[in-house]
Amino acid sequence: MKIVMLGGGPGGLGAAGAAQGTDKSAEIVVYTQFEDVAYSPCGIPFVHGKEIDSFDRLFLATKEQYVKSGIDVHYETTVDSINLKKKTIQVQGEGEIGYDKLIICTGWLYKELGIPGEDLDGIYRVKNIRSAMEWDKFLDNVKTAVVVECGPIAVEMVSAMVHRGIKTTLIDPNPWPMSDVVDPDIIEPVRKDWEDAGVDMRWGEKVTAIRGDKTVTHVETTFGDVQADIVILGTPKSPNNDLAKAAGIKIGSTGGIVIDSRCQTSDPDVYAAGDCAEIVHGITNLPLQGLTGSHAYAQGKVAGVNAGGGERIYQPVHVPWGMLAGKTMIGGLSFGETTATAVGMNYIVGSTTGITRARYYPGVQPITVKLLVDPSNRRLVGAQMVGAEGVKERADFLGVVSRAGLTIDALATMENVYSPAIGALNEPIQIAAADAVMKLDGKV
Amino acid sequence: MKIVMLGGGPGGLGAAGAAQGTDKSAEIVVYTQFEDVAYSPCGIPFVHGKEIDSFDRLFLATKEQYVKSGIDVHYETTVDSINLKKKTIQVQGEGEIGYDKLIICTGWLYKELGIPGEDLDGIYRVKNIRSAMEWDKFLDNVKTAVVVECGPIAVEMVSAMVHRGIKTTLIDPNPWPMSDVVDPDIIEPVRKDWEDAGVDMRWGEKVTAIRGDKTVTHVETTFGDVQADIVILGTPKSPNNDLAKAAGIKIGSTGGIVIDSRCQTSDPDVYAAGDCAEIVHGITNLPLQGLTGSHAYAQGKVAGVNAGGGERIYQPVHVPWGMLAGKTMIGGLSFGETTATAVGMNYIVGSTTGITRARYYPGVQPITVKLLVDPSNRRLVGAQMVGAEGVKERADFLGVVSRAGLTIDALATMENVYSPAIGALNEPIQIAAADAVMKLDGKV
Repeated sequence: MKIVMLGGGPGGLGAAGAAQGTDKSAEIVVYTQFEDVAYSPCGIPFVHGKEIDSFDRLFLATKEQYVKSGIDVHYETTVDSINLKKKTIQVQGEGEIGYDKLIICTGWLYKELGIPGEDLDGIYRVKNIRSAMEWDKFLDNVKTAVVVECGPIAVEMVSAMVHRGIKTTLIDPNPWPMSDVVDPDIIEPVRKDWEDAGVDMRWGEKVTAIRGDKTVTHVETTFGDVQADIVILGTPKSPNNDLAKAAGIKIGSTGGIVIDSRCQTSDPDVYAAGDCAEIVHGITNLPLQGLTGSHAYAQGKVAGVNAGGGERIYQPVHVPWGMLAGKTMIGGLSFGETTATAVGMNYIVGSTTGITRARYYPGVQPITVKLLVDPSNRRLVGAQMVGAEGVKERADFLGVVSRAGLTIDALATMENVYSPAIGALNEPIQIAAADAVMKLDGKV
Repeated sequence: MKIVMLGGGPGGLGAAGAAQGTDKSAEIVVYTQFEDVAYSPCGIPFVHGKEIDSFDRLFLATKEQYVKSGIDVHYETTVDSINLKKKTIQVQGEGEIGYDKLIICTGWLYKELGIPGEDLDGIYRVKNIRSAMEWDKFLDNVKTAVVVECGPIAVEMVSAMVHRGIKTTLIDPNPWPMSDVVDPDIIEPVRKDWEDAGVDMRWGEKVTAIRGDKTVTHVETTFGDVQADIVILGTPKSPNNDLAKAAGIKIGSTGGIVIDSRCQTSDPDVYAAGDCAEIVHGITNLPLQGLTGSHAYAQGKVAGVNAGGGERIYQPVHVPWGMLAGKTMIGGLSFGETTATAVGMNYIVGSTTGITRARYYPGVQPITVKLLVDPSNRRLVGAQMVGAEGVKERADFLGVVSRAGLTIDALATMENVYSPAIGALNEPIQIAAADAVMKLDGKV
């Protein structure tokens, strides 16, 4: 049994480990276009921002460890095609390679802008750690940066530029940062931090061309030219699935590879996981594409177990998420008001700004919690939060609550830890839930 | 309608506010033996430890605010008896006072040791803020302290003594701190911190007498005499319900006042809430006494709503808890291994030591999670955690999971936020749950 992974990110490595754990005699091969596997690309913006002192710290395991564990990683390889009938892949420099099971974890690419100058030097697409190491040296001499569109990585990169003292212009056709997922009230403290730090934010504006000789010197925009030693691309992610598409594997309405709950594609010997695939959302039952990190890893493990002859189900997602944006943590679950409105969901909002410790205890921080509730079943439609601690744990919590289909009443009557140094008398989620219940019951 | 509260703690004030909110025309009277209401006694150890700079910060509201809100608080009053037939209470200096509904929130007392010298000056029972202010001045001249038994408040007080540089001896007949609720592996970092700080810990030893002329000078123990400028009592709490008992209100097997889900006692016009009452545990269906803080407050609100003519139910408890002990957060849910074993529960343990952020991100902390699972229904029996951040939020989370009766499988397959600065790729609760599932399924 030979199980081949395309991609060395969390999906591919999760799959490799799980496949090996399920079928100990299987031959496990991973192909990656990059020089490394098993590092944390998510840490890159924080090395640029100097919160983390070295790229070395982002590596999880050495290449020797993979060799020892019997996972055969082929680095810096380009796979040109998949042949489903022959069950082979075509690898540059290796030729035609057979597989029994193939797991596609080819991840994502930055959506291109479709404007002149996108091929110039000096355009940074944050992704690969080796290139990040080069870019980090380059940043030492950068005085002016332009960030084009403000997705999650761009949010981290704007804060990194601020930390490095680089004069930064942020240009986005949308009205606020991460506007496709975050509500404006939730992201406001982040926007305010950037404003205070002197970031020139241009919302509702577009970059129309990137200019320079060989290397970027400036960008042309809807409001005029902006000088730029570097252009950082923060456009939405698009699934990297040209190989799958060309092979005839079914692609869904989102552009992601269609997989079932076993992470199996339209071809029974081919699985997929992570950003390149689409997954059913547990609330809407509609497909969702672009899940990364822990989701990709978990999907990879499911694909690996099943490819190895085991049986594991990946459940519809409720997507708890969170991140640090400058000094502010933001996060949530499923839909915010912006997205819920966009897809025409009916909801009411329960909200509060509570505190994370006793109001007199050092380090106490405000945290705003908004819970979106479907009046028809009193279940969560989503949540958004902003604060300085405890966002990730609360998002995870709400993810389990949402998947279990608990009603808002379960949260409105929840017990909570009160101890001055670690928690307030009233848990903000409980207060927000009680607010929602009052609204649902017509008491406000 | 006149609604009378006995006690000005979280139960009594929660009840007063809720009763007023439910019946806006009701006369709302609170009797307290103390000089104040509406402060946070839980903060006292942290003022002693100088984490908080002033007792003033512990006050929540001024007396004028209560006057304005129409809640009539009688300070420094002693209530001598309750007459259920006449629906009156006997108040020193006020005489016989009628009520329509009475809510008993008389809280708790330190269990006395039953040894000579318990009435000496210099024995500190941490509770009331005015006396804490006096004790705080006294502590400035204290060189040696003896802490007798190591309940939760004593844990905070030992750390406070360490912070103040007071030579402290801790004497407890039990084998480790908070041994009636916490497992030894969970509390070990706290014990280690104290050991490193030079606290003389004497486990399995007893204080047999407290000695001194008028004021404590030393204690006699099973291992010899120990000098003591102050003795801090850390014995278990016992319900303060002599008044209720004498009036003929039904007392339960735990020593707490028996209440139903509406917080009503055996007398239909009398309610009770907080430490003086007993509450059904959601897992064992057995009564539990001694719930305080946020639990007392929530019970008070239920009692107040119902006394005011409304309808609110208090659900059986699953008791998420947590606290800071020195530098270490400990917490959990329902039963630990020690208590589960003591009551003869059948359980398996899923456990892990995970991390709270990406392993390379500044401030990352280990967190140990132990989940106790009932093999017969795969539900939580309890949990214990130790770490340096994120304990309270996880305990709250597990409280909701437990009450909803979700199985360990829901946790083993949970989604989680991964973002380097705020959460690790793998959520420790998920790993511990997956470990439990492996054990339940006979795979380890």
